[in-house]
Amino acid sequence: MKRTYIILFLISFSFSIFAQNRLVKYAKPIIGTEKMGHTYPGATVPFGAVQLSPDTDTIPYAYQGKYTGSVYQYCAGYQYNDPTIVGFSHTHFSGTGHSDLGDFLIMPTVGKLQLNPGTADYPENGYRSKFSHRTEIAEPNYYKVELEDDHIKAELTTTTRVGFHQYTFPKSNQAHIILDLMHGIYNYEEKNVWTFVRIENDSTVVGYRETSGWARTRTLYFAMKFSKPFKSYGSKNYSPKVPYRGFWGKFDQTENFPDLAGKQLRLYFDFDTEEGEKIDIKFALSPVSTKNALENMAKETPNWDFNQVKQEGQNLWEKEFEKIQVKMLSDADMVNFYTAMYHAFLSPTVYMDVNHEYKGLDQNVHQATDFTNYTTFSLWDTYRALHPLFNLIQPERNNDMVHSMIAHYDQSALHMLPVWSNSANDDWCMSGYHSVAVIADAMMKDTYTGNAKHALEACIATATHRSYENIGDYIDKGYIPSEKNGTSVSTTLEYAFDDWCIAQLAKKLNRQDIYETFLKRSENWKNVFDSNIKFMRPKLEDGSFKKDFDVLQTDGQGFIEGNAWNYSLFVPQDPNGLIKLMGGSKKFVPHLDSLFTMHLPDQFFEHTEDITRDGIIGNYVHGNEPAHHVAYLYDWTNQPWKTQSTVRMIIKKQYHNGADGLGGNDDCGQMSAWYIFSALGFYPVAPSSNQYALGSPAVVSATVQLGRGKILKVSTKNQADENVFVKNVYFNGKKLDKPFLSDEEMASGGELVFEMSSKHP
Amino acid sequence: MKRTYIILFLISFSFSIFAQNRLVKYAKPIIGTEKMGHTYPGATVPFGAVQLSPDTDTIPYAYQGKYTGSVYQYCAGYQYNDPTIVGFSHTHFSGTGHSDLGDFLIMPTVGKLQLNPGTADYPENGYRSKFSHRTEIAEPNYYKVELEDDHIKAELTTTTRVGFHQYTFPKSNQAHIILDLMHGIYNYEEKNVWTFVRIENDSTVVGYRETSGWARTRTLYFAMKFSKPFKSYGSKNYSPKVPYRGFWGKFDQTENFPDLAGKQLRLYFDFDTEEGEKIDIKFALSPVSTKNALENMAKETPNWDFNQVKQEGQNLWEKEFEKIQVKMLSDADMVNFYTAMYHAFLSPTVYMDVNHEYKGLDQNVHQATDFTNYTTFSLWDTYRALHPLFNLIQPERNNDMVHSMIAHYDQSALHMLPVWSNSANDDWCMSGYHSVAVIADAMMKDTYTGNAKHALEACIATATHRSYENIGDYIDKGYIPSEKNGTSVSTTLEYAFDDWCIAQLAKKLNRQDIYETFLKRSENWKNVFDSNIKFMRPKLEDGSFKKDFDVLQTDGQGFIEGNAWNYSLFVPQDPNGLIKLMGGSKKFVPHLDSLFTMHLPDQFFEHTEDITRDGIIGNYVHGNEPAHHVAYLYDWTNQPWKTQSTVRMIIKKQYHNGADGLGGNDDCGQMSAWYIFSALGFYPVAPSSNQYALGSPAVVSATVQLGRGKILKVSTKNQADENVFVKNVYFNGKKLDKPFLSDEEMASGGELVFEMSSKHP
Repeated sequence: MKRTYIILFLISFSFSIFAQNRLVKYAKPIIGTEKMGHTYPGATVPFGAVQLSPDTDTIPYAYQGKYTGSVYQYCAGYQYNDPTIVGFSHTHFSGTGHSDLGDFLIMPTVGKLQLNPGTADYPENGYRSKFSHRTEIAEPNYYKVELEDDHIKAELTTTTRVGFHQYTFPKSNQAHIILDLMHGIYNYEEKNVWTFVRIENDSTVVGYRETSGWARTRTLYFAMKFSKPFKSYGSKNYSPKVPYRGFWGKFDQTENFPDLAGKQLRLYFDFDTEEGEKIDIKFALSPVSTKNALENMAKETPNWDFNQVKQEGQNLWEKEFEKIQVKMLSDADMVNFYTAMYHAFLSPTVYMDVNHEYKGLDQNVHQATDFTNYTTFSLWDTYRALHPLFNLIQPERNNDMVHSMIAHYDQSALHMLPVWSNSANDDWCMSGYHSVAVIADAMMKDTYTGNAKHALEACIATATHRSYENIGDYIDKGYIPSEKNGTSVSTTLEYAFDDWCIAQLAKKLNRQDIYETFLKRSENWKNVFDSNIKFMRPKLEDGSFKKDFDVLQTDGQGFIEGNAWNYSLFVPQDPNGLIKLMGGSKKFVPHLDSLFTMHLPDQFFEHTEDITRDGIIGNYVHGNEPAHHVAYLYDWTNQPWKTQSTVRMIIKKQYHNGADGLGGNDDCGQMSAWYIFSALGFYPVAPSSNQYALGSPAVVSATVQLGRGKILKVSTKNQADENVFVKNVYFNGKKLDKPFLSDEEMASGGELVFEMSSKHP
Repeated sequence: MKRTYIILFLISFSFSIFAQNRLVKYAKPIIGTEKMGHTYPGATVPFGAVQLSPDTDTIPYAYQGKYTGSVYQYCAGYQYNDPTIVGFSHTHFSGTGHSDLGDFLIMPTVGKLQLNPGTADYPENGYRSKFSHRTEIAEPNYYKVELEDDHIKAELTTTTRVGFHQYTFPKSNQAHIILDLMHGIYNYEEKNVWTFVRIENDSTVVGYRETSGWARTRTLYFAMKFSKPFKSYGSKNYSPKVPYRGFWGKFDQTENFPDLAGKQLRLYFDFDTEEGEKIDIKFALSPVSTKNALENMAKETPNWDFNQVKQEGQNLWEKEFEKIQVKMLSDADMVNFYTAMYHAFLSPTVYMDVNHEYKGLDQNVHQATDFTNYTTFSLWDTYRALHPLFNLIQPERNNDMVHSMIAHYDQSALHMLPVWSNSANDDWCMSGYHSVAVIADAMMKDTYTGNAKHALEACIATATHRSYENIGDYIDKGYIPSEKNGTSVSTTLEYAFDDWCIAQLAKKLNRQDIYETFLKRSENWKNVFDSNIKFMRPKLEDGSFKKDFDVLQTDGQGFIEGNAWNYSLFVPQDPNGLIKLMGGSKKFVPHLDSLFTMHLPDQFFEHTEDITRDGIIGNYVHGNEPAHHVAYLYDWTNQPWKTQSTVRMIIKKQYHNGADGLGGNDDCGQMSAWYIFSALGFYPVAPSSNQYALGSPAVVSATVQLGRGKILKVSTKNQADENVFVKNVYFNGKKLDKPFLSDEEMASGGELVFEMSSKHP
């Protein structure tokens, strides 16, 4: 009696939390799934290791591994305008511009077994199915769709490490659930290194898949349980080359054979189903072992209750969303805000089992004794605003993330902090060593609790690794000679900023010698500044600037993901110094103005990565990251009100409801973090500076849980879409005379009041 | 002072043991390395996980994976008549007729770096070297050779898990040590699945290699330390297909790059050397992780003392050899005896780290809490005499081996005991389920200490696995129809024997029901006995015997590794029954006589596996196993003295000193175990019967340590090469009236006295 009472109480408590979920409803995972957002619509919990989502295509097997442009759009496995769903796989990056993953695709079918996926044009020739957005629901931690070919309803939800599937079948004596171990995003030939599968009993399957794709050496383990025993099962090995093992011929391995391995396997499980019968699947992942995958499953999903898992996950989302409770001018803005919050809390992802084991870069199993280990660090993107946002509202998680980065360093054969951490690998994607910016920012803001001295050592070791992307040249000459590196200017600029972060950290730790060394290095941006043309410009080994140079083109001019117009403004550590060299406010302001207003023909962006015309305003590229701070640079001039109008303009133009609502890759949350900060009215132009530049809030009001028991309230007076200018701003009742606030002020909590106006001063 | 004293004492103690090594000198690892013995000459300790040995060839890479006859001779990587050594690899099977392994080849060179192995005809075009047997020394746990091309002296020794190399270089500023991760025995294309290497510092390298060869899913980890730091290093990736990882281009990975992975890697390490300078290498293996490999190294080889490691390993051998101290008629016989002891104690091999972790069939890491885990179970061979020998003189090890087999069963997705256990895989090689014979024998002889009920369950589950090699047909019909299986007769015979073992076990455990079921199954040999021709013969599904049938041919007649003449005698569980069906002693004795005396042209053995003409006496094939008990069958007739003369004749003809001293594959020690038993004067015709058949001892005398504190003394009177007949035999003073002794008698210890004579009664 008592036990029943408690359970009933818990259930009703759980329902009552769910009933209060007011914010979850605003988050729309479908936003960004069309064109270049590269987000996925499927189910996941905040920072979840499982991202269970429909794949509409990846790289078709028919391409035989040939790299074609078309693969790029499938970074997240889903494109909104595609007519078919191949199946539901368990891992996806959110918003990246390169990819991997798409592990362990599940697809239910009815009728004659077809083990090949088929093509979008002829879905009936394979196991994939037509679908329609009319039957599609995508909520945080819940995805639902009707698979039209076979009239199967598919529903997905997750816990941190377990994907939970529910398929509602028609009546059939030929119902199948396919497990495709060949499927993968960016599935080049040879990406599959090995797969291993054991059918443990009539409803349990375990195994692993090793891939060598973007992550060079990656193994992901799984455990899968069906709610109903299968009546039979089988597999097919598609690998053309099978090593000698003649004695395996003693078994018929194609049907009901429980011990499988090979490079290219597809499995199927057969069922009889009644009309409307639901078959559930729990699918647990582990970076360590099938044993751990089973333990993850047992701990996280002890019951067969799809709705409970869904609701608990949505409650987790609600809890995260409640960290910033906003009022906005419209429901559409509410959707933009909480979708940004949703996207910002997808990455980095948990990379650790419930028993705290994870695989390190050395491929050994490590125990995260005092932290949660994370992977999926897209640091070139996320050091800018996402990690600063975490420092503000996710300080514990950011502390764990820095611990994860230091562990990565400790395990690295190269003794380097991560550049792009992907499942116990470094993908080395993009330039700079921006780990140091994240670490320095966390330490400046006192969110990192680890060994400070060791963290500084890690930063210095990384920044002085001479053999990594011309760091040696950079140290010797103060810039990267353009002969030696196609992105010599942008890389020089990024190194210089990162060096400034190390200097700040060294100063805080009273290491004057290191401070001076890296402060000097941080001025290297001046070495690629051509004062004649007032642009950053490729410099040759002999010290002369490259002759043929086009400040608008993005291809072959010494930059990555930006042209000279955008990248020449990348001195977040010293806007005053930049403005001075540019000729002072008088010259700098019109220069900035023209960035946002000039008209450029499409051709100038043909070779810019990760962006469509949608992500561009004038010559300002918001869809890529290098200019994300630029609208705030007006704050350092005599016309800070232009920051206010420009930020509000960007918010309006670049963030929409609808599948095509993002103008560029969300980049693991950086695009969304920019929105969240900007909508609140301030932005961390230079992480580790402890300074926020004020802009123009898009919220009507906001209550920000600062995570250390402190609360920051943002409120506006006279807020309206047209009132983009800030007439006065008060912090804790005191009128501010500069458009800046320090982290010390902000993190102590208080009230930030903006008086809005339609006119600038 | 005290500490120094103790160390000196230990050293002198160690040397004094070494000085007493009288038996080690008789063991000649070179025996069996020519022609079909398939043994290796390199260094290893008893049952060691490392078998560090020169490879003279394996399968040349130029073959591009095409299976040719020539590969077969390289099962152990070494053929005595080859002119060159490719290098020294760390894993080798002893005496098998199929292969795998050859992991982690090391080769020292001087001069211009050559990363390809070259060919035997043109060794100067690669890193391999000419060598001569004049400079070659092969002792238990010590191998030495001069690599003539570059004048490098190579010496090898080992501990259980560590290979210890010592290379003596000439003066050079271009000395290299190559680590070839592509090399492997039976190195088919695609055998290498993945390799991963980290250069941890200027003298430490770790990594692993995954292969899919005979073992389908196999990973072996290593840790390697040099006694001297290398001055530089590099690698080459020979894999034609490299998955997308453009950003790795940020590093020059060919030289001094510490973070490597790929399918086909070769590494090199450069040194300056003085004339006569020694560079030592410790190379530790682990089935679990590089971390464990490092721990194995630290625990087993804490010092850089080659001679100490060599001596300690030879002391281990001496200790094993002392388990049977014999006097023989000649030194040549002493060499045969202790070489047999050496070969018998090479397999199974330890498959567990010093911390007791090992990888299971489920690819999870397991802890062997109360046993030592072994792999390399070539059970079709070794159930006959090797495991019975272990029960007598290695009871603790055999107990561990049975524990390992039960663990294999517990981890098997198929719920089967091992058939051919190879590094957390089953190779499924050869017929039968002879694990049950080993388990039953150990339990009948009370050497297995584990859960008896569970062991019986494992035996039954294996013997009733209907989908494994026609077990279902065998259960249903009492034989395997010849339409369904090319070796239907021999497999039926082996199943019947194994069933009898299960019956014995069930009887001992008072499971009358199981006893009766399996006793009945054990009579299935009668179903393939054609009483018209008095041979076992393939039977069709309809119950009729196959028409076209040749009792001499070995190919396509329903047998494996034997013709009808040899295999028709395979009823070790019921010699009396067989003799009765054959027409009694009167007919059976002449039949046996003709087996040993008839002349057959070579063509009859063309298709017999694993054997040359050397392994054949008349029509009796000793180089293969199925007839190993046959010479002892005379004991069940009225002319037991023919067992005596035949056994002595086989000993003389089949075991010689010299590289070609074995007439067939040693088969993980089975050939040698036959010799040891037979030389002592008795043989376990039917393991799990607890009965030994007496023959004619070749020893003058022997003291056998029975391992439970008991001692068995064998002595002879009037022993001579020509005195092959036993006039009288006494056990503990009592004259025996039958040529049999029970294990109960034998294992209690005592004295077995043979009175020898040149004439039979």
